[in-house]
Amino acid sequence: MTTVVVIPGDGVGPEVTDQAVHVLATLGLGLDLDVLDQVNADRFLRTGVAMTDDEMERARSAGAVLFGAVGDPKVPDPSYARDVLLRLRFELDLYVNHRPAALLADRLSPLRDPALRALDCVVVRENTEGAYAGVGGVLREHTPYELALDGDISTAYGVTRVLEYAFAIARRSVCLVDKANAVPFGGGLWQRRWSEVSAAHPDVGTSHLYVDAAAMRLIQNPTAFDVIVTNNSYGDILSDVTAALAGGPGTAASANLNPRHGVGLFEPVHGSAPDIAGTGRANPVGSVLSAALLLDHLGHGAEADALRAAVRATVAAGTCTPDLGGESSTKEVGAAITAEV
Amino acid sequence: MTTVVVIPGDGVGPEVTDQAVHVLATLGLGLDLDVLDQVNADRFLRTGVAMTDDEMERARSAGAVLFGAVGDPKVPDPSYARDVLLRLRFELDLYVNHRPAALLADRLSPLRDPALRALDCVVVRENTEGAYAGVGGVLREHTPYELALDGDISTAYGVTRVLEYAFAIARRSVCLVDKANAVPFGGGLWQRRWSEVSAAHPDVGTSHLYVDAAAMRLIQNPTAFDVIVTNNSYGDILSDVTAALAGGPGTAASANLNPRHGVGLFEPVHGSAPDIAGTGRANPVGSVLSAALLLDHLGHGAEADALRAAVRATVAAGTCTPDLGGESSTKEVGAAITAEV
Ligand SMILES: CC(C)[C@H](C(=O)O)[C@@H](O)C(=O)O
Ligand SMILES: CC(C)[C@H](C(=O)O)[C@@H](O)C(=O)O
Repeated sequence: MTTVVVIPGDGVGPEVTDQAVHVLATLGLGLDLDVLDQVNADRFLRTGVAMTDDEMERARSAGAVLFGAVGDPKVPDPSYARDVLLRLRFELDLYVNHRPAALLADRLSPLRDPALRALDCVVVRENTEGAYAGVGGVLREHTPYELALDGDISTAYGVTRVLEYAFAIARRSVCLVDKANAVPFGGGLWQRRWSEVSAAHPDVGTSHLYVDAAAMRLIQNPTAFDVIVTNNSYGDILSDVTAALAGGPGTAASANLNPRHGVGLFEPVHGSAPDIAGTGRANPVGSVLSAALLLDHLGHGAEADALRAAVRATVAAGTCTPDLGGESSTKEVGAAITAEV
Repeated sequence: MTTVVVIPGDGVGPEVTDQAVHVLATLGLGLDLDVLDQVNADRFLRTGVAMTDDEMERARSAGAVLFGAVGDPKVPDPSYARDVLLRLRFELDLYVNHRPAALLADRLSPLRDPALRALDCVVVRENTEGAYAGVGGVLREHTPYELALDGDISTAYGVTRVLEYAFAIARRSVCLVDKANAVPFGGGLWQRRWSEVSAAHPDVGTSHLYVDAAAMRLIQNPTAFDVIVTNNSYGDILSDVTAALAGGPGTAASANLNPRHGVGLFEPVHGSAPDIAGTGRANPVGSVLSAALLLDHLGHGAEADALRAAVRATVAAGTCTPDLGGESSTKEVGAAITAEV
């Protein structure tokens, strides 16, 4: 039996994860759910522990982790999010952050030109190095001479494997996004690895954009993109741009993967949204679509597709939370998707 | 007499700069134009010199620099752009990159909802540190064990002064954009300086967003922003997002400033666009609006406002290059603005 570790987290995390768990249970795939409901801001405030080593080991030995969101205004210390989400990504070596964005319904596009609305792309974000590595420090803190350095790390090993993933999943083309004209060392490394990996895939179209131009082009011509591959920071930003174009933050899903081994981590792109926690307004679609990616990962592709179809049908029928212009609650949307599937 | 150094550069740079120079000349302000037309890719390829020390000194002692664009597919070496544009920014210590974005005409907005189209904000980008500092290096190049590091540098000195500028120009509010939840050292420094500088301006509204959320919110709710202040990289990206929302890359202008001393550098946000160079399709609006910012800098505010009004009138009349849906050439648009002013 496959174990799925569930980490609901903070804010709207538990509410949306609940709906995803219900849908998964309905599918009757015999998944064994192991809910780690102590990974949250309350415990962190009480004990200073973001995640115990036992919890980490349970995640490591699971088939998949379904993650909600972490973050709470009561915890001003930003290291809390790092110590949960980034620790999972880094320690499980989940080097791919796979973030698909496909417009859910025409009415959800923010774009004026109907011909440009139907984006359907994947941001493949390097997930285990870059500016997120935590390499750096601060000198002379609390003086006027304070200086901080954050090291943006790129390795041939890390970049090659994520580029290979991007080419492996491309349907038509891969667009490399970097900023080699201004951030030279990592930029050069990415471009050297790109030359090598892209040459090995002559069947896949290729293009290159600097990150500023990529952000602009996504708004101006989103349907031009298939797979975008980029570093940790640029992927963070561009996947929020694609989410905004595909239906908003409430709908975006992601898979944190290491295609070379077992466990993957699946999470909505939205955060803990403390302002709407407990109001029933949180959109469960991002979490449910993350559960669909989890099913893909566990080899249940047919069920994953059925789940995606159920989400589309539910949204098309107008059963939506307020962020999508609807009047339904988190639970009502979850129930509608469950009924549809 | 005030000297304006003009660096037309490469690609469409000379074409658009020409139009801005014509408009400036028409205004009859007695500016002394010193055109450095050797700063381009051809000379770099011939001599390996991007900019001579003499050219650098002429820029330094000018009242302002009007810059076109640098970059050419014949120059694969990305250090060329660094050695011109970034050298000017860094050596002249132009610590503010002021990038206004105001929708030029309703029909140019890519957004569907009419109520969201009229953005009118300024991205204040730190321009002399961050990931652009060129601090870092590469180990084991051309081996499978290659590693690159780019240092993202933040200093109290650099961050404080750019935050102060943001508050000084705010009409309603300043939004700090960082990624302190993932990139901790610089993020912490920015937040500490922010607490101090914002406390000194109780009259100005404040908010804070992580950069991914900021990119999304700009698309979802652009009119909510007044001044956005952020680091070099995030400013680069977000100002292309605001440009896309305000009328496209052809229209965006910028001022590189050091409010504590003389010279400023004014440039369109677009690059050298080699694909359309020489076709007469390049949009001169970004360069002309940069010239308006140059006039502001030189104390000719009334003329700057007249120039902006002339641009709006020209665009409203439909005299536009193809990127704005028109059929006019670079020169025709320039002439129409000149006639209008
Ligand atoms: C050409 C490049 C180095 C530059 C930058 O990133 O600053 C450009 O994109 C800009 O925004 O002015
Ligand atoms: C919470 C934060 C550290 C995280 C990130 O930047 O990776 C989030 O924004 C995301 O995109 O998953």
